[in-house]
Amino acid sequence: MMSTKEAILFALKNAEKKYVSGEDLARKLSLSRSAVWKHVSVLKREGYEIESSSRLGYLLKSSPDLMLPSELRYKLETKAFGRAIHYFKEIESTNTKAKELAYAGASEGTLVIAERQTGGRGRREREWFSPYGGICFSLILRPQISPLEISRITLLAGVSAVQAIEKISGFESEIKWPNDVLVNGKKVVGILTEMETEADTIHFVVLGIGINANIEAADFPQGLRESATSLRIILGKKVDRRQLAGYLLKKLEDNYNQLENNNFSDILRSWKRSSAILGFRVRVETVGRAIEGKAVDVNDQGALIVETDSGATETIWSGDVVSLR
Amino acid sequence: MMSTKEAILFALKNAEKKYVSGEDLARKLSLSRSAVWKHVSVLKREGYEIESSSRLGYLLKSSPDLMLPSELRYKLETKAFGRAIHYFKEIESTNTKAKELAYAGASEGTLVIAERQTGGRGRREREWFSPYGGICFSLILRPQISPLEISRITLLAGVSAVQAIEKISGFESEIKWPNDVLVNGKKVVGILTEMETEADTIHFVVLGIGINANIEAADFPQGLRESATSLRIILGKKVDRRQLAGYLLKKLEDNYNQLENNNFSDILRSWKRSSAILGFRVRVETVGRAIEGKAVDVNDQGALIVETDSGATETIWSGDVVSLR
Repeated sequence: MMSTKEAILFALKNAEKKYVSGEDLARKLSLSRSAVWKHVSVLKREGYEIESSSRLGYLLKSSPDLMLPSELRYKLETKAFGRAIHYFKEIESTNTKAKELAYAGASEGTLVIAERQTGGRGRREREWFSPYGGICFSLILRPQISPLEISRITLLAGVSAVQAIEKISGFESEIKWPNDVLVNGKKVVGILTEMETEADTIHFVVLGIGINANIEAADFPQGLRESATSLRIILGKKVDRRQLAGYLLKKLEDNYNQLENNNFSDILRSWKRSSAILGFRVRVETVGRAIEGKAVDVNDQGALIVETDSGATETIWSGDVVSLR
Repeated sequence: MMSTKEAILFALKNAEKKYVSGEDLARKLSLSRSAVWKHVSVLKREGYEIESSSRLGYLLKSSPDLMLPSELRYKLETKAFGRAIHYFKEIESTNTKAKELAYAGASEGTLVIAERQTGGRGRREREWFSPYGGICFSLILRPQISPLEISRITLLAGVSAVQAIEKISGFESEIKWPNDVLVNGKKVVGILTEMETEADTIHFVVLGIGINANIEAADFPQGLRESATSLRIILGKKVDRRQLAGYLLKKLEDNYNQLENNNFSDILRSWKRSSAILGFRVRVETVGRAIEGKAVDVNDQGALIVETDSGATETIWSGDVVSLR
C-alpha cells in the first residue's frame, strides 16, 4: 500500500516538472494543506529538490540518485516482486539480511536493497565489489520446485539480467556458466543463489544480484580491472539505476512465473542463446580436478555438459569455467 | 575438554558403585577436599544420588534419567560428533536451534539435544511427537558434497539408526523411503535433514533424529497409535537412552566418514538391505499426483525408482510412500 508521502511524490513526478497546486493535492488525498507541506518537507530532507510557491504549489526539480523504495516502486510493473522493500544506505550483505527476513517469515517477492555493501559476497565466499553507483539487491523466493532444480533459479536470473540490460542499453550481454553476465568478455552482473531446504522441499531461496551499473573505471580496484566492467564504462554515460532495477524485477517476475508454470524450457532456450561458452572450448575447474573440452550443452537441471578430447561426456554440477575460445 | 565436575562424575561412575575417597579425588584432580565436596553438591542438585561418608568417601548410587552432556560424553567413542553439546530440558525444536548455531559458525559435530520438544518438526512442516522418554537431537554437519547429493545424508542417517537399534536391542528394523525407520511396520525413528546452501555449495546441514525410545503405549496420542511404536513397547522394558544415543552418534560418525571418503556405495548397500519396500508394490504420493508400481531401486543420489504397470520407470525425488506389500 502506498503511503501518503509516496502518493504526493508520485503526483509530483507525474506532473513532469510542472507545478502541482497544494490545494489539489490536499483535496485528492483528503489532507490539510499543512499536512501536505509537512510531507513535502520530509521529501526535501530525503534529497528531493522541490520548489514551493504559495501561488503555484509544488514543483519537483530533481530526485536524489538513490534506490529509495518510492523511486523503485514508481512505475514498477510487477505484481509481487519488489512490492515490499527493505532499504539500506549501507549494509554488510543484502543476501544475509534477506535470509534473516526469510527465516522470520517474509513473503515471496520481498526485496532487500542497499546503496552499497561492506561485505558483498559472491559464490563460494568470494568477495563482491559493491560500491555506491552499482545496484545490489536480494529477492526472497519460495518456489514450488525440488532443491535439485535450484540451478534453474540461477539460470533464470542470468536470462532476466541479459534482457533488462538489453532493454536499458541496447547491449547484448552474454552468460558464462553458471552465473556471470558479461559484456565484451568482462563481468557486469554477478548472481548468488542461496537456499534453505529440507532434503526434498525448499523453505526459501534468496536470489542476490549485483550489477556494475554506474561505477567509474577508476573506482574499480586494480585486481578487478581485467575481469570486470560497468554499464557506465561501456555506454560512456550513466544509466537510470531505478529504471534498470525496475526492468530487471519485471523480467525476473515474468520468467519466475514461467518456471512456476512448469515452462522452464523457454527460459533454458533463452539462456543457451545468450551463452558465452556453448560450442566453445573450455576448462572447468571443479573441486580436486580440471576438465577440458568442448562445452556442448546445459541440461534441464542446469548442469554443464562437456565433451572431452577422448569423446567422453562429463556432466558438471559445480565449477568455474575458463573460456578457451 | 572435560570439566572438573565431569572428571569427578566419571571417576564415581568408573568405580561402579564402590566408594571413592575424597582424598584420592582431590589429589588426582589437584583440588582441595572442600572443592571436591562442592562439585559433588552440584551433581546432587542435578539429580545424581551420591552417598557421602567421612571415612569412605563418595558413592554414586544412581544417575538421573536425563540426556545430560556428561552422561552422553561418558564412554562416547566418537571423535567429533557430540563433543560439543547444547542441552535443553525443553525446546521448541532442536533443528531450529541447531540452524541458529550453524549460522553463527558452530563447528561440525556440534549436537543440540533436548529432553522434549514443544514444536518438534518432521518433513514438510509435519508435527513430530517428542515427549520426555524419547530421544531427540540435531547434529550440525558441513559435508564436502554437492547440494544435489543431500539425500545421501538422509539415507546414511537411516542406516545408522538401524545399526544402533540392532546393537542396543537385537531388533532388526526396516527403512521406508526416504526416511522412516520402522519396527513391525510402525515408526520408531524419524529423520529431518535441513540445509543452507548456495546453488552448488553446502554451507551447513542440520540432521535431526527423533527416536521413540522409552515412550509408553498410553502416552502416544490416539492418532499415532496405529502408525508409531517405541522401543519400550517392543522390548517390554526401557532402553538406556544415553547408551543408544552414544551408539547412534558413533554409527553416524563412521558412516559419515565413509561418505566423505567417497565411499557411499557401502552405505547404499546397507540401506537397500534394510529397505522395507524394495521389491514390493507401493503407491507414492508426490506433489499433484500418485504413482503406483513396484519399488525396484534407490539410485546413487537417493531417488526412488518405481516400475509402473505399463513397464515405464519413474525416478522419484520426493514423496510419501504407502506400502502395498
